[in-house]
Amino acid sequence: MSLKIYCDRMSQPSRAILIFSKMNGLDFEEITIKIFEGQQHTPEYKEINPMSQVPTIVHGDFRLFESHAILIYLCSAFPQVASHWYPSDIHERAKVHSVLDWHHSNLRRGSVGVLTNLMLLPLRGAPLDTKATEEAEKTLEKSLSIIESFWLKDGPFLVGRSQPSIADLCLISEIMELQLLSERDHERILSPYKKVSKWIEDTKKATAPYFDEIHQDLLIAQKGFREQLENLGKTN
Amino acid sequence: MSLKIYCDRMSQPSRAILIFSKMNGLDFEEITIKIFEGQQHTPEYKEINPMSQVPTIVHGDFRLFESHAILIYLCSAFPQVASHWYPSDIHERAKVHSVLDWHHSNLRRGSVGVLTNLMLLPLRGAPLDTKATEEAEKTLEKSLSIIESFWLKDGPFLVGRSQPSIADLCLISEIMELQLLSERDHERILSPYKKVSKWIEDTKKATAPYFDEIHQDLLIAQKGFREQLENLGKTN
Repeated sequence: MSLKIYCDRMSQPSRAILIFSKMNGLDFEEITIKIFEGQQHTPEYKEINPMSQVPTIVHGDFRLFESHAILIYLCSAFPQVASHWYPSDIHERAKVHSVLDWHHSNLRRGSVGVLTNLMLLPLRGAPLDTKATEEAEKTLEKSLSIIESFWLKDGPFLVGRSQPSIADLCLISEIMELQLLSERDHERILSPYKKVSKWIEDTKKATAPYFDEIHQDLLIAQKGFREQLENLGKTN
Repeated sequence: MSLKIYCDRMSQPSRAILIFSKMNGLDFEEITIKIFEGQQHTPEYKEINPMSQVPTIVHGDFRLFESHAILIYLCSAFPQVASHWYPSDIHERAKVHSVLDWHHSNLRRGSVGVLTNLMLLPLRGAPLDTKATEEAEKTLEKSLSIIESFWLKDGPFLVGRSQPSIADLCLISEIMELQLLSERDHERILSPYKKVSKWIEDTKKATAPYFDEIHQDLLIAQKGFREQLENLGKTN
Protein backbone atom coordinates (compact mmCIF):
# COMPACT_ATOMS: atom_id res chain seq x y z
CA MET A 1 0.00 0.00 0.00
CA SER A 2 1.62 3.26 -1.10
CA LEU A 3 2.37 6.09 1.35
CA LYS A 4 2.41 9.66 0.08
CA ILE A 5 3.57 12.53 2.28
CA TYR A 6 2.39 15.96 1.14
CA CYS A 7 4.73 18.39 2.83
CA ASP A 8 7.18 21.25 2.66
CA ARG A 9 10.59 21.05 4.31
CA MET A 10 10.10 24.69 5.33
CA SER A 11 7.21 23.58 7.59
CA GLN A 12 8.18 22.36 11.05
CA PRO A 13 5.60 19.51 11.35
CA SER A 14 6.47 18.34 7.82
CA ARG A 15 10.11 17.97 8.85
CA ALA A 16 9.17 15.94 11.94
CA ILE A 17 7.29 13.45 9.75
CA LEU A 18 10.02 13.24 7.11
CA ILE A 19 12.79 12.59 9.68
CA PHE A 20 10.59 9.98 11.37
CA SER A 21 9.77 8.22 8.10
CA LYS A 22 13.40 8.10 6.98
CA MET A 23 14.62 6.96 10.41
CA ASN A 24 12.18 4.06 10.30
CA GLY A 25 12.88 3.08 6.69
CA LEU A 26 9.30 3.71 5.53
CA ASP A 27 8.77 3.45 1.79
CA PHE A 28 7.12 6.75 0.86
CA GLU A 29 6.80 9.36 -1.83
CA GLU A 30 7.51 12.96 -0.77
CA ILE A 31 5.27 15.43 -2.58
CA THR A 32 6.29 19.03 -2.03
CA ILE A 33 3.56 21.64 -1.55
CA LYS A 34 5.37 24.97 -1.51
CA ILE A 35 3.66 26.94 1.22
CA PHE A 36 5.52 30.21 0.56
CA GLU A 37 4.14 30.01 -3.01
CA GLY A 38 0.61 29.29 -1.78
CA GLN A 39 0.38 25.80 -3.31
CA GLN A 40 -1.60 24.64 -0.26
CA HIS A 41 -4.50 26.77 -1.50
CA THR A 42 -4.92 25.18 -4.95
CA PRO A 43 -8.20 23.32 -5.61
CA GLU A 44 -6.17 20.11 -6.22
CA TYR A 45 -4.54 20.26 -2.81
CA LYS A 46 -7.79 21.26 -1.09
CA GLU A 47 -9.22 17.98 -2.37
CA ILE A 48 -6.50 16.25 -0.34
CA ASN A 49 -6.64 18.54 2.68
CA PRO A 50 -9.55 20.98 2.89
CA MET A 51 -7.72 22.85 5.70
CA SER A 52 -5.02 23.89 3.18
CA GLN A 53 -2.21 22.90 5.48
CA VAL A 54 0.80 20.64 5.32
CA PRO A 55 1.60 17.90 6.15
CA THR A 56 -1.03 15.43 4.96
CA ILE A 57 -0.53 11.73 4.30
CA VAL A 58 -2.36 9.47 1.91
CA HIS A 59 -1.87 5.79 2.75
CA GLY A 60 -3.75 3.62 0.27
CA ASP A 61 -7.11 5.39 0.25
CA PHE A 62 -6.79 6.76 3.79
CA ARG A 63 -6.15 10.48 4.16
CA LEU A 64 -4.98 12.09 7.36
CA PHE A 65 -3.76 15.48 8.53
CA GLU A 66 -2.54 16.99 11.81
CA SER A 67 1.07 16.02 12.34
CA HIS A 68 0.80 14.44 15.80
CA ALA A 69 -2.07 12.25 14.60
CA ILE A 70 -0.05 11.30 11.51
CA LEU A 71 2.99 10.25 13.56
CA ILE A 72 0.87 8.15 15.92
CA TYR A 73 -0.82 6.53 12.93
CA LEU A 74 2.51 5.71 11.25
CA CYS A 75 3.76 4.12 14.50
CA SER A 76 0.69 1.88 14.52
CA ALA A 77 0.48 1.11 10.80
CA PHE A 78 4.12 0.15 10.21
CA PRO A 79 5.38 -2.77 12.32
CA GLN A 80 9.04 -1.92 11.66
CA VAL A 81 8.81 1.31 13.68
CA ALA A 82 11.02 1.03 16.79
CA SER A 83 8.93 1.06 19.98
CA HIS A 84 10.71 4.02 21.60
CA TRP A 85 9.01 6.39 19.14
CA TYR A 86 5.57 5.69 20.65
CA PRO A 87 5.82 3.50 23.73
CA SER A 88 3.18 0.84 24.26
CA ASP A 89 3.17 1.04 28.08
CA ILE A 90 0.05 3.08 28.89
CA HIS A 91 1.81 5.35 31.40
CA GLU A 92 4.74 6.07 29.11
CA ARG A 93 2.39 6.60 26.18
CA ALA A 94 0.21 8.95 28.24
CA LYS A 95 3.23 11.09 29.07
CA VAL A 96 4.09 11.35 25.37
CA HIS A 97 0.48 12.39 24.62
CA SER A 98 0.65 14.93 27.44
CA VAL A 99 3.69 16.77 26.08
CA LEU A 100 2.34 16.60 22.51
CA ASP A 101 -0.92 18.21 23.66
CA TRP A 102 0.94 20.81 25.69
CA HIS A 103 2.96 21.71 22.58
CA HIS A 104 -0.06 23.11 20.68
CA SER A 105 -1.00 26.00 22.95
CA ASN A 106 2.45 26.72 24.33
CA LEU A 107 5.65 26.16 22.35
CA ARG A 108 3.94 26.16 18.95
CA ARG A 109 1.82 29.19 19.69
CA GLY A 110 4.78 31.15 21.03
CA SER A 111 7.12 30.11 18.23
CA VAL A 112 4.69 30.90 15.41
CA GLY A 113 3.83 34.23 17.08
CA VAL A 114 7.49 35.22 17.37
CA LEU A 115 8.30 34.23 13.78
CA THR A 116 5.26 36.15 12.52
CA ASN A 117 6.11 39.31 14.44
CA LEU A 118 9.91 39.36 14.26
CA MET A 119 10.39 37.90 10.78
CA LEU A 120 7.40 37.55 8.45
CA LEU A 121 5.63 40.86 9.13
CA PRO A 122 8.82 43.01 9.09
CA LEU A 123 9.84 41.43 5.76
CA ARG A 124 6.42 42.38 4.38
CA GLY A 125 6.96 45.95 5.50
CA ALA A 126 4.35 45.87 8.27
CA PRO A 127 4.95 48.10 11.30
CA LEU A 128 6.04 46.32 14.51
CA ASP A 129 3.06 45.32 16.67
CA THR A 130 4.75 45.78 20.05
CA LYS A 131 1.96 44.21 22.12
CA ALA A 132 1.63 41.10 19.92
CA THR A 133 5.42 40.71 19.79
CA GLU A 134 5.77 40.95 23.57
CA GLU A 135 2.96 38.45 24.13
CA ALA A 136 4.43 35.97 21.64
CA GLU A 137 7.93 36.28 23.15
CA LYS A 138 6.51 35.78 26.62
CA THR A 139 4.66 32.62 25.52
CA LEU A 140 7.75 31.28 23.75
CA GLU A 141 10.14 32.02 26.61
CA LYS A 142 7.78 30.52 29.17
CA SER A 143 7.49 27.40 26.99
CA LEU A 144 11.26 27.04 26.61
CA SER A 145 11.64 27.49 30.34
CA ILE A 146 9.07 24.73 31.02
CA ILE A 147 10.83 22.37 28.60
CA GLU A 148 14.13 23.12 30.36
CA SER A 149 12.86 22.74 33.93
CA PHE A 150 10.01 20.25 33.60
CA TRP A 151 9.78 18.19 30.42
CA LEU A 152 13.54 17.49 30.37
CA LYS A 153 14.00 17.08 34.14
CA ASP A 154 14.07 13.26 34.19
CA GLY A 155 16.24 12.32 31.22
CA PRO A 156 17.98 13.35 28.01
CA PHE A 157 14.72 13.23 26.02
CA LEU A 158 11.23 14.53 26.83
CA VAL A 159 9.21 13.01 29.71
CA GLY A 160 12.27 11.21 31.06
CA ARG A 161 12.89 8.91 28.14
CA SER A 162 16.33 7.52 27.25
CA GLN A 163 15.58 7.49 23.50
CA PRO A 164 13.62 10.00 21.42
CA SER A 165 9.87 9.69 20.95
CA ILE A 166 7.69 11.35 18.31
CA ALA A 167 7.30 14.24 20.80
CA ASP A 168 11.00 15.11 20.61
CA LEU A 169 10.79 15.34 16.82
CA CYS A 170 7.69 17.56 16.93
CA LEU A 171 8.97 20.01 19.52
CA ILE A 172 12.50 20.25 18.14
CA SER A 173 11.30 20.80 14.57
CA GLU A 174 9.32 23.72 15.99
CA ILE A 175 12.35 25.19 17.75
CA MET A 176 14.50 24.73 14.62
CA GLU A 177 12.10 27.01 12.71
CA LEU A 178 13.38 29.85 14.91
CA GLN A 179 16.60 29.63 12.87
CA LEU A 180 14.77 31.97 10.46
CA LEU A 181 14.98 34.81 13.01
CA SER A 182 17.90 37.24 12.86
CA GLU A 183 21.02 35.85 14.51
CA ARG A 184 20.68 38.40 17.30
CA ASP A 185 17.05 37.52 18.10
CA HIS A 186 17.80 33.81 17.91
CA GLU A 187 20.71 34.11 20.31
CA ARG A 188 18.78 36.38 22.68
CA ILE A 189 15.79 34.03 22.89
CA LEU A 190 17.47 30.61 22.86
CA SER A 191 20.80 31.04 24.64
CA PRO A 192 19.50 30.89 28.26
CA TYR A 193 18.29 27.30 27.79
CA LYS A 194 21.30 25.03 28.12
CA LYS A 195 19.37 21.77 28.55
CA VAL A 196 17.27 22.61 25.49
CA SER A 197 20.49 23.08 23.44
CA LYS A 198 21.89 19.78 24.67
CA TRP A 199 18.59 18.00 23.94
CA ILE A 200 18.56 19.33 20.37
CA GLU A 201 22.14 18.11 19.87
CA ASP A 202 21.28 14.69 21.35
CA THR A 203 18.26 14.39 19.04
CA LYS A 204 20.33 15.43 16.01
CA LYS A 205 22.81 12.67 16.84
CA ALA A 206 20.07 10.10 17.47
CA THR A 207 18.46 10.88 14.10
CA ALA A 208 21.60 11.34 11.99
CA PRO A 209 22.00 11.72 9.08
CA TYR A 210 18.34 12.54 8.43
CA PHE A 211 17.98 15.45 10.84
CA ASP A 212 20.58 17.53 9.00
CA GLU A 213 19.43 16.33 5.57
CA ILE A 214 15.81 17.37 6.19
CA HIS A 215 16.83 20.70 7.77
CA GLN A 216 19.14 21.65 4.91
CA ASP A 217 16.52 23.70 3.00
CA LEU A 218 15.70 25.64 6.16
CA LEU A 219 19.34 26.58 6.70
CA ILE A 220 19.72 27.64 3.07
CA ALA A 221 16.60 29.80 3.42
CA GLN A 222 17.97 31.18 6.70
CA LYS A 223 20.81 32.87 4.84
CA GLY A 224 18.41 34.77 2.56
CA PHE A 225 16.00 35.71 5.34
CA ARG A 226 18.81 36.93 7.60
CA GLU A 227 20.29 39.07 4.83
CA GLN A 228 16.89 40.65 4.20
CA LEU A 229 16.38 41.30 7.93
CA GLU A 230 19.90 42.78 8.12
CA ASN A 231 19.20 45.15 5.21
CA LEU A 232 15.91 46.13 6.80
CA GLY A 233 17.80 47.05 9.98
CA LYS A 234 20.23 49.20 7.97
CA THR A 235 17.50 51.13 6.17
CA ASN A 236 15.36 51.70 9.26
CA MET B 1 -6.09 1.81 42.68
CA SER B 2 -7.75 5.13 43.49
CA LEU B 3 -8.51 7.73 40.82
CA LYS B 4 -8.58 11.41 41.79
CA ILE B 5 -9.75 14.06 39.35
CA TYR B 6 -8.61 17.58 40.19
CA CYS B 7 -10.96 19.85 38.30
CA ASP B 8 -13.43 22.70 38.23
CA ARG B 9 -16.84 22.32 36.61
CA MET B 10 -16.37 25.86 35.27
CA SER B 11 -13.48 24.58 33.12
CA GLN B 12 -14.42 23.07 29.77
CA PRO B 13 -11.83 20.22 29.72
CA SER B 14 -12.70 19.36 33.32
CA ARG B 15 -16.32 18.87 32.32
CA ALA B 16 -15.37 16.59 29.43
CA ILE B 17 -13.47 14.31 31.82
CA LEU B 18 -16.21 14.31 34.47
CA ILE B 19 -18.95 13.43 31.96
CA PHE B 20 -16.76 10.69 30.50
CA SER B 21 -15.92 9.23 33.90
CA LYS B 22 -19.54 9.19 35.03
CA MET B 23 -20.76 7.73 31.73
CA ASN B 24 -18.31 4.86 32.06
CA GLY B 25 -18.99 4.20 35.74
CA LEU B 26 -15.43 4.96 36.86
CA ASP B 27 -14.90 5.02 40.60
CA PHE B 28 -13.28 8.40 41.26
CA GLU B 29 -12.97 11.24 43.71
CA GLU B 30 -13.71 14.71 42.35
CA ILE B 31 -11.48 17.35 43.94
CA THR B 32 -12.53 20.89 43.08
CA ILE B 33 -9.81 23.46 42.39
CA LYS B 34 -11.66 26.75 42.07
CA ILE B 35 -9.96 28.50 39.18
CA PHE B 36 -11.84 31.80 39.55
CA GLU B 37 -10.47 31.92 43.13
CA GLY B 38 -6.92 31.12 41.97
CA GLN B 39 -6.67 27.77 43.78
CA GLN B 40 -4.67 26.37 40.86
CA HIS B 41 -1.79 28.63 41.91
CA THR B 42 -1.38 27.34 45.48
CA PRO B 43 1.94 25.56 46.30
CA GLU B 44 -0.07 22.41 47.18
CA TYR B 45 -1.70 22.25 43.77
CA LYS B 46 1.54 23.11 41.97
CA GLU B 47 2.98 19.96 43.53
CA ILE B 48 0.29 18.06 41.65
CA ASN B 49 0.40 20.09 38.43
CA PRO B 50 3.30 22.54 38.02
CA MET B 51 1.46 24.13 35.07
CA SER B 52 -1.26 25.38 37.48
CA GLN B 53 -4.05 24.16 35.27
CA VAL B 54 -7.05 21.90 35.62
CA PRO B 55 -7.83 19.09 35.03
CA THR B 56 -5.18 16.75 36.43
CA ILE B 57 -5.64 13.13 37.40
CA VAL B 58 -3.80 11.07 39.98
CA HIS B 59 -4.28 7.34 39.47
CA GLY B 60 -2.38 5.41 42.12
CA ASP B 61 0.98 7.20 41.99
CA PHE B 62 0.64 8.26 38.34
CA ARG B 63 -0.03 11.94 37.65
CA LEU B 64 -1.20 13.27 34.33
CA PHE B 65 -2.42 16.52 32.87
CA GLU B 66 -3.68 17.74 29.45
CA SER B 67 -7.27 16.70 29.01
CA HIS B 68 -6.99 14.83 25.70
CA ALA B 69 -4.10 12.77 27.10
CA ILE B 70 -6.13 12.07 30.25
CA LEU B 71 -9.14 10.83 28.29
CA ILE B 72 -7.02 8.56 26.12
CA TYR B 73 -5.30 7.21 29.23
CA LEU B 74 -8.64 6.52 30.98
CA CYS B 75 -9.87 4.65 27.89
CA SER B 76 -6.78 2.44 28.04
CA ALA B 77 -6.57 1.99 31.83
CA PHE B 78 -10.21 1.05 32.49
CA PRO B 79 -11.45 -2.06 30.63
CA GLN B 80 -15.10 -1.18 31.23
CA VAL B 81 -14.92 1.87 28.94
CA ALA B 82 -17.11 1.30 25.87
CA SER B 83 -15.02 1.07 22.69
CA HIS B 84 -16.83 3.86 20.82
CA TRP B 85 -15.14 6.47 23.07
CA TYR B 86 -11.69 5.67 21.63
CA PRO B 87 -11.93 3.21 18.75
CA SER B 88 -9.27 0.54 18.46
CA ASP B 89 -9.26 0.40 14.63
CA ILE B 90 -6.16 2.41 13.65
CA HIS B 91 -7.93 4.44 10.96
CA GLU B 92 -10.87 5.34 13.18
CA ARG B 93 -8.52 6.13 16.05
CA ALA B 94 -6.35 8.30 13.79
CA LYS B 95 -9.40 10.34 12.78
CA VAL B 96 -10.25 10.92 16.45
CA HIS B 97 -6.65 12.05 17.10
CA SER B 98 -6.85 14.34 14.08
CA VAL B 99 -9.91 16.26 15.27
CA LEU B 100 -8.55 16.40 18.84
CA ASP B 101 -5.29 17.93 17.57
CA TRP B 102 -7.18 20.33 15.31
CA HIS B 103 -9.20 21.48 18.34
CA HIS B 104 -6.18 23.06 20.12
CA SER B 105 -5.27 25.76 17.61
CA ASN B 106 -8.72 26.33 16.18
CA LEU B 107 -11.94 25.91 18.20
CA ARG B 108 -10.22 26.20 21.58
CA ARG B 109 -8.12 29.17 20.59
CA GLY B 110 -11.10 31.00 19.10
CA SER B 111 -13.43 30.20 21.96
CA VAL B 112 -11.00 31.23 24.71
CA GLY B 113 -10.17 34.41 22.76
CA VAL B 114 -13.83 35.35 22.37
CA LEU B 115 -14.64 34.67 26.04
CA THR B 116 -11.61 36.70 27.14
CA ASN B 117 -12.48 39.68 24.94
CA LEU B 118 -16.28 39.73 25.12
CA MET B 119 -16.76 38.56 28.71
CA LEU B 120 -13.77 38.44 31.06
CA LEU B 121 -12.02 41.70 30.12
CA PRO B 122 -15.23 43.81 29.96
CA LEU B 123 -16.23 42.53 33.40
CA ARG B 124 -12.83 43.62 34.71
CA GLY B 125 -13.41 47.09 33.28
CA ALA B 126 -10.79 46.77 30.53
CA PRO B 127 -11.39 48.74 27.31
CA LEU B 128 -12.45 46.68 24.28
CA ASP B 129 -9.46 45.52 22.21
CA THR B 130 -11.14 45.66 18.79
CA LYS B 131 -8.35 43.92 16.88
CA ALA B 132 -8.00 41.04 19.33
CA THR B 133 -11.79 40.64 19.49
CA GLU B 134 -12.13 40.53 15.71
CA GLU B 135 -9.32 38.02 15.36
CA ALA B 136 -10.77 35.77 18.05
CA GLU B 137 -14.27 35.91 16.53
CA LYS B 138 -12.84 35.12 13.12
CA THR B 139 -10.97 32.08 14.48
CA LEU B 140 -14.06 30.89 16.36
CA GLU B 141 -16.45 31.36 13.45
CA LYS B 142 -14.07 29.66 11.02
CA SER B 143 -13.76 26.75 13.47
CA LEU B 144 -17.53 26.39 13.87
CA SER B 145 -17.92 26.52 10.12
CA ILE B 146 -15.32 23.73 9.67
CA ILE B 147 -17.07 21.57 12.29
CA GLU B 148 -20.38 22.13 10.47
CA SER B 149 -19.10 21.47 6.94
CA PHE B 150 -16.23 19.03 7.48
CA TRP B 151 -15.99 17.25 10.82
CA LEU B 152 -19.73 16.54 10.93
CA LYS B 153 -20.19 15.81 7.22
CA ASP B 154 -20.23 12.00 7.51
CA GLY B 155 -22.40 11.30 10.53
CA PRO B 156 -24.16 12.57 13.64
CA PHE B 157 -20.90 12.65 15.63
CA LEU B 158 -17.41 13.91 14.72
CA VAL B 159 -15.39 12.16 11.98
CA GLY B 160 -18.43 10.23 10.79
CA ARG B 161 -19.03 8.18 13.90
CA SER B 162 -22.45 6.85 14.90
CA GLN B 163 -21.73 7.13 18.64
CA PRO B 164 -19.78 9.83 20.50
CA SER B 165 -16.02 9.59 20.99
CA ILE B 166 -13.87 11.49 23.48
CA ALA B 167 -13.49 14.17 20.75
CA ASP B 168 -17.21 15.01 20.87
CA LEU B 169 -16.99 15.58 24.63
CA CYS B 170 -13.90 17.80 24.32
CA LEU B 171 -15.21 20.02 21.53
CA ILE B 172 -18.73 20.34 22.89
CA SER B 173 -17.55 21.21 26.40
CA GLU B 174 -15.58 24.00 24.73
CA ILE B 175 -18.62 25.30 22.86
CA MET B 176 -20.77 25.09 26.00
CA GLU B 177 -18.40 27.53 27.72
CA LEU B 178 -19.69 30.17 25.28
CA GLN B 179 -22.90 30.10 27.33
CA LEU B 180 -21.09 32.65 29.53
CA LEU B 181 -21.33 35.27 26.76
CA SER B 182 -24.25 37.68 26.68
CA GLU B 183 -27.35 36.12 25.17
CA ARG B 184 -27.03 38.43 22.16
CA ASP B 185 -23.39 37.51 21.45
CA HIS B 186 -24.12 33.82 21.96
CA GLU B 187 -27.03 33.90 19.54
CA ARG B 188 -25.13 35.98 16.98
CA ILE B 189 -22.11 33.64 16.98
CA LEU B 190 -23.77 30.21 17.31
CA SER B 191 -27.09 30.46 15.50
CA PRO B 192 -25.81 30.01 11.90
CA TYR B 193 -24.56 26.50 12.67
CA LYS B 194 -27.55 24.18 12.54
CA LYS B 195 -25.60 20.91 12.38
CA VAL B 196 -23.53 22.02 15.36
CA SER B 197 -26.73 22.64 17.36
CA LYS B 198 -28.11 19.23 16.43
CA TRP B 199 -24.80 17.55 17.29
CA ILE B 200 -24.77 19.18 20.74
CA GLU B 201 -28.35 17.98 21.34
CA ASP B 202 -27.46 14.45 20.16
CA THR B 203 -24.45 14.39 22.48
CA LYS B 204 -26.53 15.66 25.41
CA LYS B 205 -28.98 12.81 24.82
CA ALA B 206 -26.22 10.22 24.42
CA THR B 207 -24.63 11.30 27.70
CA ALA B 208 -27.79 11.91 29.76
CA PRO B 209 -28.17 12.54 32.63
CA TYR B 210 -24.51 13.43 33.22
CA PHE B 211 -24.18 16.14 30.56
CA ASP B 212 -26.79 18.35 32.23
CA GLU B 213 -25.63 17.44 35.74
CA ILE B 214 -22.02 18.46 35.04
CA HIS B 215 -23.07 21.63 33.18
CA GLN B 216 -25.39 22.80 35.96
CA ASP B 217 -22.78 25.02 37.68
CA LEU B 218 -21.99 26.70 34.36
CA LEU B 219 -25.62 27.56 33.75
CA ILE B 220 -26.00 28.92 37.28
CA ALA B 221 -22.91 31.08 36.73
CA GLN B 222 -24.30 32.17 33.36
CA LYS B 223 -27.14 34.01 35.08
CA GLY B 224 -24.76 36.09 37.18
CA PHE B 225 -22.36 36.81 34.31
CA ARG B 226 -25.16 37.83 31.96
CA GLU B 227 -26.65 40.17 34.54
CA GLN B 228 -23.28 41.83 35.02
CA LEU B 229 -22.77 42.17 31.25
CA GLU B 230 -26.29 43.60 30.94
CA ASN B 231 -25.60 46.22 33.64
CA LEU B 232 -22.32 47.10 31.98
CA GLY B 233 -24.23 47.75 28.72
CA LYS B 234 -26.67 50.01 30.55
CA THR B 235 -23.96 52.11 32.18
CA ASN B 236 -21.81 52.46 29.04
